Amino acid sequence: MRTSRIGVIGSAQCSREIYHLAEQVGEGIARGGALLICGGLGGVMEGACKGAKSAGGTTIGILPGVRPEDANIYVDIPLATGLGLARNLFVVRSSQALIAIEGGYGTLSEIAFSLQLGVPVIGLRTTYTDAQMLRAHNAADAVKQAFAMLTARPPAGKWTRKGSPQPA
Amino acid sequence: MRTSRIGVIGSAQCSREIYHLAEQVGEGIARGGALLICGGLGGVMEGACKGAKSAGGTTIGILPGVRPEDANIYVDIPLATGLGLARNLFVVRSSQALIAIEGGYGTLSEIAFSLQLGVPVIGLRTTYTDAQMLRAHNAADAVKQAFAMLTARPPAGKWTRKGSPQPA
Amino acid sequence: MRTSRIGVIGSAQCSREIYHLAEQVGEGIARGGALLICGGLGGVMEGACKGAKSAGGTTIGILPGVRPEDANIYVDIPLATGLGLARNLFVVRSSQALIAIEGGYGTLSEIAFSLQLGVPVIGLRTTYTDAQMLRAHNAADAVKQAFAMLTARPPAGKWTRKGSPQPA
Amino acid sequence: MRTSRIGVIGSAQCSREIYHLAEQVGEGIARGGALLICGGLGGVMEGACKGAKSAGGTTIGILPGVRPEDANIYVDIPLATGLGLARNLFVVRSSQALIAIEGGYGTLSEIAFSLQLGVPVIGLRTTYTDAQMLRAHNAADAVKQAFAMLTARPPAGKWTRKGSPQPA
Repeated sequence: MRTSRIGVIGSAQCSREIYHLAEQVGEGIARGGALLICGGLGGVMEGACKGAKSAGGTTIGILPGVRPEDANIYVDIPLATGLGLARNLFVVRSSQALIAIEGGYGTLSEIAFSLQLGVPVIGLRTTYTDAQMLRAHNAADAVKQAFAMLTARPPAGKWTRKGSPQPA
Repeated sequence: MRTSRIGVIGSAQCSREIYHLAEQVGEGIARGGALLICGGLGGVMEGACKGAKSAGGTTIGILPGVRPEDANIYVDIPLATGLGLARNLFVVRSSQALIAIEGGYGTLSEIAFSLQLGVPVIGLRTTYTDAQMLRAHNAADAVKQAFAMLTARPPAGKWTRKGSPQPA
Repeated sequence: MRTSRIGVIGSAQCSREIYHLAEQVGEGIARGGALLICGGLGGVMEGACKGAKSAGGTTIGILPGVRPEDANIYVDIPLATGLGLARNLFVVRSSQALIAIEGGYGTLSEIAFSLQLGVPVIGLRTTYTDAQMLRAHNAADAVKQAFAMLTARPPAGKWTRKGSPQPA
Repeated sequence: MRTSRIGVIGSAQCSREIYHLAEQVGEGIARGGALLICGGLGGVMEGACKGAKSAGGTTIGILPGVRPEDANIYVDIPLATGLGLARNLFVVRSSQALIAIEGGYGTLSEIAFSLQLGVPVIGLRTTYTDAQMLRAHNAADAVKQAFAMLTARPPAGKWTRKGSPQPA
């Protein structure tokens, strides 16, 4: 059976508090039995991977550069795209639901792609807000909402066609 | 001598008013002697190209799909990337300054990339606002600011390294 | 510890004989404890995934389109890139060694990228030949050579710099 | 009216003889009134651009890196993709016909994509040969064949569907 895939997006540099939040999110994703997808670097991505590994999960890091060695040490499967920031879109497309934690402009580009493509995205401490975007108040809530979106998911193909109220 | 390149970003569907605004922007870019870069489709992209052609300019359309035929009729040079939304990043990277007109989520992804990469972006009727983003109140002002950014541009390489206060 | 990653490349349509050969290659990769990377579609890709699953391995399918549902049923982790044929490069970059089985023009593009980037590639029934390319005469031999390349691999970064005798 | 687009592919480093051949090809493309598309770097790409400029043509360089400054000095419109070698596919997709001059593995990946996508490709001193690939014996012949392919081109969409006898 195919594994569910939940993505975690956020900055490569973050405070200790945000790192800890990412750890909790990663742990929850692993406990729920989903694969963790992320950008493979430090900060929020590393925290999430560390949390997932602490709960026996599996982590995939989709890197912007060409060196698998650039992945954080908690990444099981480093995929070096060499696509630069275009890998942001690929992180979004690879996930069935996304949890955005805080985040800067890179995370904003990922949120924008999620909203355009109709991939459910749950914001946790994000500064960007949008009526189409879900919000969570703590890690457990974010994880719960992400898993709820997986089961609520309409038949294949539906999400890719809807979700673009303002095409651009 | 190399031509300056100004990008125009915005939705593929827009009101008549926004279309007319895009036309004015495109006309201004052509009159200033810059090449117009855009995503090649309809709406804001078409308006901008139409305006540029009315002033004898040259237009490049960087398309998401694989068919050059999908470009609007005012595109001189249709480049069909086949990269889907990843072409949004490429529109940003190809431009020395960008004017965002209104826009939906696709435009938001482009604004996010611009801010992350330090490519100057001027917002005209955009809903997204950001301290790092320039704002214009009409087409002439937007064009003026875009050209000002070209001459203000620091030596090669500077922009790509700065502009990422919140790495992600 | 990070899993080794061996890629299998070949056509989406193939004869029963080639499909069986791909199965044997996939099985050998899984028995050796490596992760199987492929393009996720039918033919050689499906055969290899089926073989890997029969030996309890894990399979990743890096798809050209936007629908994870397009992956063959033996793919554990479908990654839908939406990049079209540009995903060929990404299959190459994600692998530490590649086994090419027969194959058409798509496979040829992957072999070319492998040779340019210095990722070891072993040909099994490929029509294209090259002095830089390894050759195997059966599935077991191909798998053996691929695993030998993993251990022979020079320190990080070395491979990306060599392997391009004819830069282009 | 839209400009025709002919691509020239070949290595970033080449002999003086090959450089001169590329110049002749570029000059012929410009004289015929087509836009020259290339990878924007040195060697064959530079020779072709230099030739095109000597005949008053227009040149586009689709660069692998993020710096427009890396384009050779004969490129009018430098487009910095930041996509690395994935830009090879984009050079192919942007062209209506391609002339390959000598070339290494990068050029081979472009020839493979051309053959898979059905974009006509004419080989001039290429080591790779294929029944689907056209051959020219000198620059004038290559240019003549490329322009002949433009007019012979079937209605929009036809080429993208054919040309893949060995899907992969």
